[in-house]
Amino acid sequence: MSAFAIQLPYLLFLGNEESAPNAKTAFGLRDWRPDACVAQWRLSAKTVDLGLPDMHAKSAKQAGAKSLLIGVAPFGGAIDAAWIAPLKEAIEAGLDIVSGMHTRLESIDELRIAAEKAGTQLINVRHPRQTFPVGTGVKRSGKRLLTVGTDCALGKKYTALALTKALNAAGHDATFRATGQTGIMISGSGIAIDAIVSDFIAGAAELLSPNNADTHWDIVEGQGSLLHPAYAGVSLGLLHGSQPDVIVLCHDTRRTEIDRHPNFKIPDLEHVIDLNITLGRRTNPNLRCAAISLNTYKMSEQERVDALGSTQLRYGLPTFDPFVSDLKPIVKAIAG
Amino acid sequence: MSAFAIQLPYLLFLGNEESAPNAKTAFGLRDWRPDACVAQWRLSAKTVDLGLPDMHAKSAKQAGAKSLLIGVAPFGGAIDAAWIAPLKEAIEAGLDIVSGMHTRLESIDELRIAAEKAGTQLINVRHPRQTFPVGTGVKRSGKRLLTVGTDCALGKKYTALALTKALNAAGHDATFRATGQTGIMISGSGIAIDAIVSDFIAGAAELLSPNNADTHWDIVEGQGSLLHPAYAGVSLGLLHGSQPDVIVLCHDTRRTEIDRHPNFKIPDLEHVIDLNITLGRRTNPNLRCAAISLNTYKMSEQERVDALGSTQLRYGLPTFDPFVSDLKPIVKAIAG
Repeated sequence: MSAFAIQLPYLLFLGNEESAPNAKTAFGLRDWRPDACVAQWRLSAKTVDLGLPDMHAKSAKQAGAKSLLIGVAPFGGAIDAAWIAPLKEAIEAGLDIVSGMHTRLESIDELRIAAEKAGTQLINVRHPRQTFPVGTGVKRSGKRLLTVGTDCALGKKYTALALTKALNAAGHDATFRATGQTGIMISGSGIAIDAIVSDFIAGAAELLSPNNADTHWDIVEGQGSLLHPAYAGVSLGLLHGSQPDVIVLCHDTRRTEIDRHPNFKIPDLEHVIDLNITLGRRTNPNLRCAAISLNTYKMSEQERVDALGSTQLRYGLPTFDPFVSDLKPIVKAIAG
Repeated sequence: MSAFAIQLPYLLFLGNEESAPNAKTAFGLRDWRPDACVAQWRLSAKTVDLGLPDMHAKSAKQAGAKSLLIGVAPFGGAIDAAWIAPLKEAIEAGLDIVSGMHTRLESIDELRIAAEKAGTQLINVRHPRQTFPVGTGVKRSGKRLLTVGTDCALGKKYTALALTKALNAAGHDATFRATGQTGIMISGSGIAIDAIVSDFIAGAAELLSPNNADTHWDIVEGQGSLLHPAYAGVSLGLLHGSQPDVIVLCHDTRRTEIDRHPNFKIPDLEHVIDLNITLGRRTNPNLRCAAISLNTYKMSEQERVDALGSTQLRYGLPTFDPFVSDLKPIVKAIAG
């Protein structure tokens, strides 16, 4: 799907990002590919800390890093002016740059020229290297699960990765299908769905999870939310094109409104599930919601138990946190 | 919004398209800018007929045409191989080429080289010449109407154009906002919303109808349908970003399934209205459906009266055909 020749391992670049949700790319890499993360590079003491050794470009290169990975994704996907000098330094130290930003690395003259001189690669994971077909709506063989959310950045990718692992561990045949830059960096393939020209969103989603064996599960990483004032179109195209048999709703009980959009309240989860099911059944009439995935990061044990228990009770659906819960009952609720 | 220096009038190129809905660009130009249409160019006798004089490139140039406009939009938006020779002929005759296709004209070597040689323009209306912001969801001043549909190609643009005209005629201040290639060709500005990178659909729609006087109406041309397996994401992004106060549902009572997608039935209109209102109220809680626009093209007078009457009775909403109905009551239902 996307033939990127990414060289591992990474130096994770965090810029001067102080918000952990905006550094989800870096956290994702650290958690899902610890073997591929040599160090972190933070521009200030206030910058998010992944708990990895702090290194600059040169020391990371000496420690074995082959690529600098931009591990933060600020709102809008543009490259911060303050990053240009350190990125240039990394190129000059001989590192490839791997980016999931909307702005192409080579559009910045200083980086393009430095990379040409150093003979290193500028890799834009978010920019597809192929064209995509228009969606057909034709039903495909095999089983599919899509993680959907009440907002961005609250666990759709982590949930999909954890469920893929748990399904395979239980003897099912499951494949993680990445739809965002971090997922692609972790899994090595996929389609950055939010970078697709909008006419082709559903078509790209169809291509991402092709016909497969009847018992095979594609676990598709969700994007955005049908509730999000900026990204709902992406979420709907992905829902239609993925044709999921099962959705898992991802939520954080502490989040009552869309992040950075305080006027957009998150309604009762039943409404969100109904909305996804109503719209999703347009391309797969058998769609059902199998479980709720809660992000309980930094909750106390008691808060976590309460959140999981009360959500499960209220909606009558198995409720779990992919980081801490036993996933065997969830696998059973999904695949029987 | 899109600063295209299109030179009028046009020679309308129809290729060998036999389906009138696929030639909606050409019909739109003929109907809404008859002053800008010198002739049509059809590659075979079976090709759709606009009722304009048939001319080749050279004769059209002699008759005063300045640009050849590609008036057909086949599924997927690619340029047919059979068109390349006639398009080259037009360039050599000194005509600019204006295209609303996804494929850029200059990506075809023969056309690019011919245009460079002849010094004529290759204009890709569908390709935005600017970048767009992420949607904010922040409410804007002024009134907005969005035409929504049960499918593609059944009158959303015509309805928006007719309502703009009728609102202005009734003394309101109204502006047509084009979201597709034909609309842009007709009105001279706008944003081809289906060509936007999907993360920015809602943001582009916000930009298209900026803050305005409280009594001003933006009449936004709808795209696709929430029911469409390929294009629903575009429709939802446009609905969210437009923040309409009023939607007008466009339908053709003879169409019972999505064109070219026979497994996708068109449900009861009440369901379609509810779906648009439920989703649209996320960014404008005051959204209401004011009327239903029926495409009664080629119906007998009796069929038309029956279709309009039965639809109005069934849904309790003023129902009209923008080509034949008196629009005064519709303007009243929209703007009071």
